[in-house]
Amino acid sequence: MKRRTFLKNLSVSALCVSTLGLLGAYRQREVLGTPLRVNQARLVSRVAELAKFGRDDRGHGYRVAYTKGDLDGRAWFIAQMKQAGLDPAIDAAGNIIGKRKGKNPALKPIAFGSHIDMVPDGGNYDGPLGSLGALEVIDVLNEHKMLTEHPLEVIIFANEEGGTVGSMAMAGGLTPAGLQQKSQSGLTMAEGIKAIGGNPDNIPSAVRKRGDLRAWVELHIEQGGILAQENIQIGVVEGIVGIVHWEVTVEGFANHAGTTPMNARQDALLAASRLVIAVNEVITAVPGNQVGTVGKLAVAPNAYNVIPGKVVLGLEIRDLAADKIETLFREIEHRAAAIAAASHTTIRFERQANASKPALTDPALQQTVQAAAKALGLSTKLMQSGAGHDSQEMAVIAPVAMIFVPSVGGISHSPRELTKPGDLANGANVLLQTILSIDKAKEQ
Amino acid sequence: MKRRTFLKNLSVSALCVSTLGLLGAYRQREVLGTPLRVNQARLVSRVAELAKFGRDDRGHGYRVAYTKGDLDGRAWFIAQMKQAGLDPAIDAAGNIIGKRKGKNPALKPIAFGSHIDMVPDGGNYDGPLGSLGALEVIDVLNEHKMLTEHPLEVIIFANEEGGTVGSMAMAGGLTPAGLQQKSQSGLTMAEGIKAIGGNPDNIPSAVRKRGDLRAWVELHIEQGGILAQENIQIGVVEGIVGIVHWEVTVEGFANHAGTTPMNARQDALLAASRLVIAVNEVITAVPGNQVGTVGKLAVAPNAYNVIPGKVVLGLEIRDLAADKIETLFREIEHRAAAIAAASHTTIRFERQANASKPALTDPALQQTVQAAAKALGLSTKLMQSGAGHDSQEMAVIAPVAMIFVPSVGGISHSPRELTKPGDLANGANVLLQTILSIDKAKEQ
Repeated sequence: MKRRTFLKNLSVSALCVSTLGLLGAYRQREVLGTPLRVNQARLVSRVAELAKFGRDDRGHGYRVAYTKGDLDGRAWFIAQMKQAGLDPAIDAAGNIIGKRKGKNPALKPIAFGSHIDMVPDGGNYDGPLGSLGALEVIDVLNEHKMLTEHPLEVIIFANEEGGTVGSMAMAGGLTPAGLQQKSQSGLTMAEGIKAIGGNPDNIPSAVRKRGDLRAWVELHIEQGGILAQENIQIGVVEGIVGIVHWEVTVEGFANHAGTTPMNARQDALLAASRLVIAVNEVITAVPGNQVGTVGKLAVAPNAYNVIPGKVVLGLEIRDLAADKIETLFREIEHRAAAIAAASHTTIRFERQANASKPALTDPALQQTVQAAAKALGLSTKLMQSGAGHDSQEMAVIAPVAMIFVPSVGGISHSPRELTKPGDLANGANVLLQTILSIDKAKEQ
Repeated sequence: MKRRTFLKNLSVSALCVSTLGLLGAYRQREVLGTPLRVNQARLVSRVAELAKFGRDDRGHGYRVAYTKGDLDGRAWFIAQMKQAGLDPAIDAAGNIIGKRKGKNPALKPIAFGSHIDMVPDGGNYDGPLGSLGALEVIDVLNEHKMLTEHPLEVIIFANEEGGTVGSMAMAGGLTPAGLQQKSQSGLTMAEGIKAIGGNPDNIPSAVRKRGDLRAWVELHIEQGGILAQENIQIGVVEGIVGIVHWEVTVEGFANHAGTTPMNARQDALLAASRLVIAVNEVITAVPGNQVGTVGKLAVAPNAYNVIPGKVVLGLEIRDLAADKIETLFREIEHRAAAIAAASHTTIRFERQANASKPALTDPALQQTVQAAAKALGLSTKLMQSGAGHDSQEMAVIAPVAMIFVPSVGGISHSPRELTKPGDLANGANVLLQTILSIDKAKEQ
């Protein structure tokens, strides 16, 4: 109830600001008015600077977590934090945490940031924008000698791309088994955490309890093409989709492709093809933003002249609602049973252990982001995140907000990943105004 | 006309023998009557004996051409031929040719046989039946002290499974480039031919000219399930299908499976799946025995969370009529163009160089086989061979007949390959009677 009352007040004031322009109070101008803006040139130049770490001779980026490029990038970032007067420390999971005091040390900290590790041959914006945007917020506050009510924390999570490892540790979800998994670097997670200055033997010390933080806010590139295509400047993220994977085995009977008549075949690939199409039909048959993909598929014995006896394929479904994922899956299972019967094959689904649950952002913070963007004259769209982020882990322990900016062509995890300078600055400005709004709002 | 007159006579007499039992003439009884029968027990025991060569510890057969198992099997076969009074020699291509004199040395030889090499982990009937059946024919003639009018030749072709290499050489089709290809044994064809006693430098000496032979007759297991399923004892082969392969490349756009909405995808696997189904629909939409198969398929990048950007698949079409293969392919191309347009992908077909043309057996010899089987009280079916055989090469230079017997479950190229003893004997008896019929018929 408390939160709902707050929300009503906030949306009223946001409306007033955006329609009337001025409310007179300096305090209000600080939050939504003109003086406080990030430095676009500095932000763009820092993105370029960070991109140098882990880059190969061809100019491709390999700042993979726990590798030398990651270590170099982190060292540079820590230096930037120090320069900004933050007091950076590395927690047991290898996360870099830079703290800035607030007027009222009794208030819960407002945390924001992202990650700076990348996928192999990845892009320069996925992670860096939210990280450098957070640094930019601190610099602007410093330049204006502004002290927030709440303490602030800039958090750079370790190994986001390898399974949101750092944020999972902070949310209490990193298990001893998880620590023993191999990371992309070749090291185990435990070895990697050690390599970047963490302490894998003391992961519990990195855990934040539910309610420890006032909020977690993450600025990120969309990594999809929706904002760019619809020409919208800011995505207000409703939540991060849940992801479930199934390994699907289609078994028919491998036989001679020359001597087996068409009506006597048990062709596993023909059945698998019908299933791929059924997945697409089931996913697109109902309204919503759910996605379903068959991204991998292997045929055995895989020869021109042998009717496929076995196909193993990978099915993925993502949605903001866990029960919708299950409903869609049951319909796919239903369709698969009919396909198997008609094709004299068997189709078996094996749910994979790596499922992630949908993570919803905080509705009040969604409104805060929305209002901040509107006050800056930026167009917004309420949308889901189809990709995973550290925010999905943080949603377990804190009210979360995510701000998206457009990705040109929707391309990500690629050297062709690009967000235009103006959009980088728009995102960082919305981050800045969101932090200030949360700071000014009544304590929850 | 000559042939047609002969045929009419033959089918009339065959009818008389089978319905009335006796016609009185000894000569007629020799051809179609009771005394001449193969020795089923000896045939079955020789199949088991030959199966020992190239067998591994687990009992699986690896009598792959040019390997030790092949050499051992050939040595045993040559000894059997000598014992049967044949005069075995190895031609330049490594084919084993055992000759038996005829009453009239001016007549063209009647040749028959098959091959004894096998695919890795193959079965004991594909090749051995026709080879040992031919030996059985010689043994029966010897036992009855019968001398045929025509000279006879038992031919065991080298490396059938690796591309009908020996018979291709005999038909003049083995090129210097073909000799340099790697065989399954690891040796080049030239090296392999040398290893089995041939002379790769003198391949032209192995060539038989068109018209050199009166006929080539091959007994073989069906390798498909049609005879077994329809409970028919003898397949009279109309021809060996032509085979054309295409490598098909479907290109879409690889993108994030979480952030790319369903309606913004260019999913190469979804398009490829529609193509696999279209192939099946096109092949089965018209009457006939044509077969079309997508037996291999590879996806890139092949991950749960990436929309497939590229699929490469293998399309094979087989039919007895080369123009039907082309007509079916054009329809598939047509369907592919529509699929590509609807899915925002491109689909490219690349015809492979290894196409084989359909090879028809001799219509008069089909009738001879049919009559021989009928006279033995065996049910027959006119059918195509979906698999390739040495007979397809021999059809270039000689009138060809092929006799099929049932394969249990249609299984072949597998340790589970099986033809029942009675069917082995039926096939060899039809072979025997066919050879005798051809021998008795007027010279063409």
